[in-house]
Amino acid sequence: MTNGIKDGFYKEITPGGFGIAIKSGKVLFSEQSPFQKVEVFETDSMLGRVLTLDDLMMTTEGDEFHYHEMIAHIPMMHHKNPESVLVIGGGDGGTVREVLKHKTVKRVVLCEIDGMVIDACKKFLPTISCELDNPKVEILVQDAIEYIKDKKNEFDIVLIDSTDPMGPGEGLFTEEFYTNVKNSLKKDGIVCAQSESPFVNREEIKKMYNLLKKVFPVCSTFTSNIPTYPGGYWAWAFCSETVEPLSYFADDRYEDITKSCKIYNKEYHNARFALPNYLKELL
Amino acid sequence: MTNGIKDGFYKEITPGGFGIAIKSGKVLFSEQSPFQKVEVFETDSMLGRVLTLDDLMMTTEGDEFHYHEMIAHIPMMHHKNPESVLVIGGGDGGTVREVLKHKTVKRVVLCEIDGMVIDACKKFLPTISCELDNPKVEILVQDAIEYIKDKKNEFDIVLIDSTDPMGPGEGLFTEEFYTNVKNSLKKDGIVCAQSESPFVNREEIKKMYNLLKKVFPVCSTFTSNIPTYPGGYWAWAFCSETVEPLSYFADDRYEDITKSCKIYNKEYHNARFALPNYLKELL
Repeated sequence: MTNGIKDGFYKEITPGGFGIAIKSGKVLFSEQSPFQKVEVFETDSMLGRVLTLDDLMMTTEGDEFHYHEMIAHIPMMHHKNPESVLVIGGGDGGTVREVLKHKTVKRVVLCEIDGMVIDACKKFLPTISCELDNPKVEILVQDAIEYIKDKKNEFDIVLIDSTDPMGPGEGLFTEEFYTNVKNSLKKDGIVCAQSESPFVNREEIKKMYNLLKKVFPVCSTFTSNIPTYPGGYWAWAFCSETVEPLSYFADDRYEDITKSCKIYNKEYHNARFALPNYLKELL
Repeated sequence: MTNGIKDGFYKEITPGGFGIAIKSGKVLFSEQSPFQKVEVFETDSMLGRVLTLDDLMMTTEGDEFHYHEMIAHIPMMHHKNPESVLVIGGGDGGTVREVLKHKTVKRVVLCEIDGMVIDACKKFLPTISCELDNPKVEILVQDAIEYIKDKKNEFDIVLIDSTDPMGPGEGLFTEEFYTNVKNSLKKDGIVCAQSESPFVNREEIKKMYNLLKKVFPVCSTFTSNIPTYPGGYWAWAFCSETVEPLSYFADDRYEDITKSCKIYNKEYHNARFALPNYLKELL
């Protein structure tokens, strides 16, 4: 095993042969759930506490906003009136917290397969999980593949905040699943899905977008920096039946949202859709 | 010492407590120059060979284009007719290689303090150093602080491709140096300087931009992804007396340049100047 904590450092090396290292402190939680190893440890670093699943980096207190602001606000700001939102995975609660910044939202369903992730984050990562008890949030500890099967015309926004396409997250990267997600959308609904590292996971990205493009008439990609993911660069898919990215922008909600964010602003948002040559060729 | 090769891994941890890890192979070169430890090692990874100075990551065969395309083409494409270019530092030759893609260029001066860096890169990193023998290139193994002192009206573009503001690179981050660089510029000249990691090196960035702003009427910042620098995200300063970024764009050279690049294109270029909230506040 290369990944995990050893000799005072958490190390995570991708199949590509490089990755991240973090000076680790006390392990606060480490248990095997029915799905994966769930671990939270302290660090002496600017990252604060860290959540890993099966020794893969999920999020840290110090840099989580890089991920959560992007997956939430980029799709949300392209929707005129997002009232009903489904978050798939995302048991740490960071995506839910960002979604709730939009005053239009009346209901957020969090569908996370692993209850242990939710419990560990509620206990040890309160700055991330802080909105999980909000009365607008319905938490379902359930496999999203089953949950989504019979949903029709129910969500304005679906955010797929999953782990990688191996392990418990695998079934969230299939044509059947994407089709069910599409059917769960209301008119002018938008799906945003984490889609791995453009530099490190090239084959996975190609496969994923080939499937998404079969299902969604609109399928774009945006990217941003994540300091603690190997390569420091991450991609998300923006999919819809009708909504092109950079078409509608919710100016009425903008000031509130950007004021509450460490990264998100309109220029930064628009710039996310400009991709490097190598990624454009891959897609 | 935390940084460097140990037990089959190169590890580099920033003062912030996190960084990168790379599976390392054979060390091809490791010597102490009068200025620093120069090392090249092989990896089993997609990064190929790696150059480090004093156990700090400089560049890798596999991801070097992320850095070199940005520092060269973003300033160069905003200049109408860049003929004379000065590269300070940059002994690996990657920046020189990118500069020479611009057909307007008649002369490139590379002023690198450490001849051992140039020699090691010529021998072990040929895909990066390949243009150092181009007849348009003048190589000076010399301290740029001395070299720049009496230069007036000589360069269209100055690229400061330095190490960090400690060690041999320290004197390249002073008001006096920046003033001399400004004086070395021809009319409508542009300076581009690497300016550290926005996420990791916040104090260094603040200090550096405070100095640059004293010297240059135009002082902007752009950022991009560097997979092997801690945090995966890097900033460069774009400075000039007269040229605002995103004003003039060299459409006549564009097709040639973007075709030869793995990242660089016009949309990506423009998007570089959109900054996250936390960085805007810092500057």
